[in-house]
Amino acid sequence: MLSTRREFLGTAGCALAAPVGQATADWRDQGILHLEASPHARLKNIPVRAFTMHEGFWAPRRKANVERSIPTLLQLLEEHGVVDNFRRLSGRKKVPRRGPLYTDSDLYKWMEAVAFVLQSEDRPDLRATFDRLTEEILAAQEPSGYLNTYYVEERRNLRFKEMHRGHELYCLGHLLQAAIAYYRATGGTRLLEGGIRFVNYLTDNFGRDKDPLLAGHPCIEMALVELYRMTRDRRHLDLAAYLLEGDGERLKLTRQQMVYLFSGKPFISRTQLEGHAVRAMYACCGAADYLMETGDGAYARTLEALWQDLARGKLYITGGVGSRAQGEAFGEPYELPNRLAYTESCAAIGNVMWNWRLLAARGEARFADMLERALYNGVNSGMSLSGDLYCYRNPLELSGDPEDRIRNPWYDTTCCPPNLERTFAALPGYFYSTSSEGVWVHLYHAGALDWRLPGCGRIELVQKTQYPWEGRVELDVRPERPAEFTLFLRIPAWASGAKLAVNGAPQPVRPGEYAVLRRSWRPGDRVVLELPLEVRLTVANPMVAENWGRAAVERGPLVYCVEQLDHPGVSIFDLLLDPAAGFTAEFRPDLLGGVVVLRHKGRAWQDSPAAEPLYGRWPRPARPTRPVEITLIPYYTFHNRGITAMRVWLPMAGA
Amino acid sequence: MLSTRREFLGTAGCALAAPVGQATADWRDQGILHLEASPHARLKNIPVRAFTMHEGFWAPRRKANVERSIPTLLQLLEEHGVVDNFRRLSGRKKVPRRGPLYTDSDLYKWMEAVAFVLQSEDRPDLRATFDRLTEEILAAQEPSGYLNTYYVEERRNLRFKEMHRGHELYCLGHLLQAAIAYYRATGGTRLLEGGIRFVNYLTDNFGRDKDPLLAGHPCIEMALVELYRMTRDRRHLDLAAYLLEGDGERLKLTRQQMVYLFSGKPFISRTQLEGHAVRAMYACCGAADYLMETGDGAYARTLEALWQDLARGKLYITGGVGSRAQGEAFGEPYELPNRLAYTESCAAIGNVMWNWRLLAARGEARFADMLERALYNGVNSGMSLSGDLYCYRNPLELSGDPEDRIRNPWYDTTCCPPNLERTFAALPGYFYSTSSEGVWVHLYHAGALDWRLPGCGRIELVQKTQYPWEGRVELDVRPERPAEFTLFLRIPAWASGAKLAVNGAPQPVRPGEYAVLRRSWRPGDRVVLELPLEVRLTVANPMVAENWGRAAVERGPLVYCVEQLDHPGVSIFDLLLDPAAGFTAEFRPDLLGGVVVLRHKGRAWQDSPAAEPLYGRWPRPARPTRPVEITLIPYYTFHNRGITAMRVWLPMAGA
Repeated sequence: MLSTRREFLGTAGCALAAPVGQATADWRDQGILHLEASPHARLKNIPVRAFTMHEGFWAPRRKANVERSIPTLLQLLEEHGVVDNFRRLSGRKKVPRRGPLYTDSDLYKWMEAVAFVLQSEDRPDLRATFDRLTEEILAAQEPSGYLNTYYVEERRNLRFKEMHRGHELYCLGHLLQAAIAYYRATGGTRLLEGGIRFVNYLTDNFGRDKDPLLAGHPCIEMALVELYRMTRDRRHLDLAAYLLEGDGERLKLTRQQMVYLFSGKPFISRTQLEGHAVRAMYACCGAADYLMETGDGAYARTLEALWQDLARGKLYITGGVGSRAQGEAFGEPYELPNRLAYTESCAAIGNVMWNWRLLAARGEARFADMLERALYNGVNSGMSLSGDLYCYRNPLELSGDPEDRIRNPWYDTTCCPPNLERTFAALPGYFYSTSSEGVWVHLYHAGALDWRLPGCGRIELVQKTQYPWEGRVELDVRPERPAEFTLFLRIPAWASGAKLAVNGAPQPVRPGEYAVLRRSWRPGDRVVLELPLEVRLTVANPMVAENWGRAAVERGPLVYCVEQLDHPGVSIFDLLLDPAAGFTAEFRPDLLGGVVVLRHKGRAWQDSPAAEPLYGRWPRPARPTRPVEITLIPYYTFHNRGITAMRVWLPMAGA
Repeated sequence: MLSTRREFLGTAGCALAAPVGQATADWRDQGILHLEASPHARLKNIPVRAFTMHEGFWAPRRKANVERSIPTLLQLLEEHGVVDNFRRLSGRKKVPRRGPLYTDSDLYKWMEAVAFVLQSEDRPDLRATFDRLTEEILAAQEPSGYLNTYYVEERRNLRFKEMHRGHELYCLGHLLQAAIAYYRATGGTRLLEGGIRFVNYLTDNFGRDKDPLLAGHPCIEMALVELYRMTRDRRHLDLAAYLLEGDGERLKLTRQQMVYLFSGKPFISRTQLEGHAVRAMYACCGAADYLMETGDGAYARTLEALWQDLARGKLYITGGVGSRAQGEAFGEPYELPNRLAYTESCAAIGNVMWNWRLLAARGEARFADMLERALYNGVNSGMSLSGDLYCYRNPLELSGDPEDRIRNPWYDTTCCPPNLERTFAALPGYFYSTSSEGVWVHLYHAGALDWRLPGCGRIELVQKTQYPWEGRVELDVRPERPAEFTLFLRIPAWASGAKLAVNGAPQPVRPGEYAVLRRSWRPGDRVVLELPLEVRLTVANPMVAENWGRAAVERGPLVYCVEQLDHPGVSIFDLLLDPAAGFTAEFRPDLLGGVVVLRHKGRAWQDSPAAEPLYGRWPRPARPTRPVEITLIPYYTFHNRGITAMRVWLPMAGA
């Protein structure tokens, strides 16, 4: 269970965190979440700008994000009329409204991505674009504060009348997130003020004793809590609470709607993840944010139950979630089909965001483990290495049908591309946290943290590693003066055999927990972590129907897959892993932007079963196999060399 | 390949079939299909009334159909405004139109069911209801012939303008089928004349050189060919040909639309079953009907390729088809998930109808085998034993979630209930055929055939059997005078070890083929067929991901399943079949209307894997099992005792 007590308040050293209830005023110090004054957040975020990432695994992905993805997506948003939808309201353009009713959110999410870039980099061009778009948007805002490009003119009377589909609050949620990120990048509040005007319009008109309101597509809840963290305006938190409690009865929502929408009924009445996966993940984010402000035990229990529901039966090995195309929805426990996996990029991102919040609330490594799994695999796959193609679905198997184009530059519902952009842009903010006890290292990547601990002053942490390609992590700890605090290092649950040393002295580690290094740190102290990157054969619970007799190949945090184009002369659907044979890891700088490929002396069926009848009598005759060289690439790189069959879970020879 | 030559023209005996091109005028002699004058139909249907079914497997199902299902469904159609939709147009009622745009077809299909009942039974009440409804319908028909309750008033200008969704021709197709069935029951042509008026409106206004037309939801094609078989009006066949050729280019259909709709592009350009399963099956029916009239080799080749596509990778063991809820669609080859199986009742019925036509065209047992599989399992499951609950989906596994109510009295899209009714009502028409060579026995059931062979005079065949509960079939052959002809008896492909004797003399049989008994038959001749009903363990091709290490239990034509309520104290998801243990068959007259249950000394996991983590390291530790008594019931009876977990494919111990 998620406890709501603050069991963690450090006692010694420099644990003088900012007092609860007193927010820092400095926008530069605010991280992805601003938890300084959140009484039930064990961990505090660092500002994105505090961690400078060096060359390594994420560098080319982030470069493609800024240099290719972000600029080309704005062009596409313009081409598809998403910005014009605002201009027509302000009279700057005479055009019809275009696109589905939630296009505003796509622009806001793109702007949030830009804002996160600005938190790391000085990019006057992007800042100017953000400012220009802010004016385009605000020019379409009504004096009341209402702002939405769809519910206007002949649809005006439908405002807040079809909230099960309307996405009005979803769009506002994304506007607030963009505005907050921009504030934390620049201190600029122009868009934020517009967002607050709309929020105040809501608090004036809706609520338990006023007109009923529905999140419809959750998002607004976490945005409102984040807004509250800055404004300390209790109405903002109360509105989030009201939406999480759900007013679906008054709105006459059906039970099915409340399942699908993951809103409208009390969040704390939920017992399982169900319905639309992105909605469910975002609702869980909002609930976790609310928990960190209130410590409400019912929320803690519900969040724990839902997390267990995910971890025990609804999580793909890639960290992707949401099995069903129908309703873009969660399935039943263990319903994890590979080829049919829906696993929307946005849902994997929602999973990252939710675990990030649970990690902040609890400081437990299991949340960082799941976050890492999703980030390195099911989110990472969502953007092409080139930066301009995006997955909506991220299946674990593809037939290679040339019609099955899974990476595309544009979707009419283009929620995933800017969601990926904002995630990659915010990435440095996910690597470290602080608490009253010290500094937490969640993820490993070369780079320099330049931040401070209250009472300890400035602390630099310089990480050198080629993780996840290599397992060695060197961490130079450089406090500005000797200071006693704890350095928490996450030891992933898969890392049995991990070794840790401080200045050469071995330290105890337990996989699946944070190693706790408490001492008086001095400049020149060096921590060395050796994470074992042996290839792992992972099997699924036998309740997962499709993975019987199969295994997935993992190395470090990365899930691997096979692609047909690496296997001329044999169908990948005839391949078998040989449990008796090992794997050879080889870094190929020329391949897929530089990846470690795995080679395995596996087997293949002599004769493809595709030639046999669909049904036959038990027992089938033994199926002879022949040796074959199997090449595996990291899952996230699939379909970066064209459309080809792909597979994560492979049968085991002899199974 | 389906050959289009008539290789089968008998040479000897009484093989004097009605000359091609000359239809019999007697409505009493027409079967489900009227193929007397179809030059490329090897087999001719018998009239439904010619086979009187006695007590046995289908009797209680047909009784429930007539006594419970048909009357209650009309009440529900009335309650939901389906008949009122006609009355409002004729001014008999002032009510708004209700229901989805295709409700007309639901009434027509119900009327077709009634018409088939009237082909077997004298039911003045049902006949009067049919006549009354005919008048309600015709009163809504426009002078032009146009008839549809949706495209009226403000939607009038959308007629034939949105044929990808409009279902106008689909409704007409069902009207024609009802009208034809009623003609064959009574000789009455009033509804048929109305249908022809609409058809003539179409032939006047649409076609290659006129306005473009689209089936949209196939059905009209087979109805038009059937109409042509009665009218011999070439325009009716030509319109079917035009629709099968597809005019989607002129209608600017997208490629995806032509996939989903299974219409709009040349039928003969199809290479696989794809898109909406019912649409695909109905289109295949129309194409097979067209083939029987024209012998077009391209149609023969396409139909064969599509049938192979089904048989080799897209057919559920229950004969159900259509794997995906999304789009109610076919999936990729081998995409046959059990719990997610969509397998709409209508699609399984479409499969029966298609195989019935291919059987008529070719006289090959494989088509009757597939028909039997679908009829006894995936269609049969669609109506509850009580007759008033219907499945839309017929999955092969259910979790037992009480919310997962798979049998319901009504659906807003209520296509399946009347489709099941018309199938059960027409059932006697599927058991026998004739050809120039003699009489064909496709299916086995107690009953008396009273029909004739041209040149041989009247022939009675009296079948005594408890099939499929017991394997012995006794057939008394009673020609009115000694006559030479062939008796074809289908030996199902599963029936290895079948034994056949004529008057005690053993005859050769080959499973999967028709046994050919040619002789001069005399009154008193007795044929005895022994079909072995050993329980079979069936395995799926390893390309079917979910069925690795699993088997399904079959006995005769019936697929079996386990239900949780027969297994107190153990989860059916922990059960394993023991390949070393046998099965005991026991007829339980008290259970589920009287069924043979199977008992098996199987195994169960000591500890449910549901308690274990979702992912773990290979190899998993061995999983101890314990002995447990497993009870299997016929699949078609699932959920007739309430909502409970159900499963067809069970893991094999030691697999």
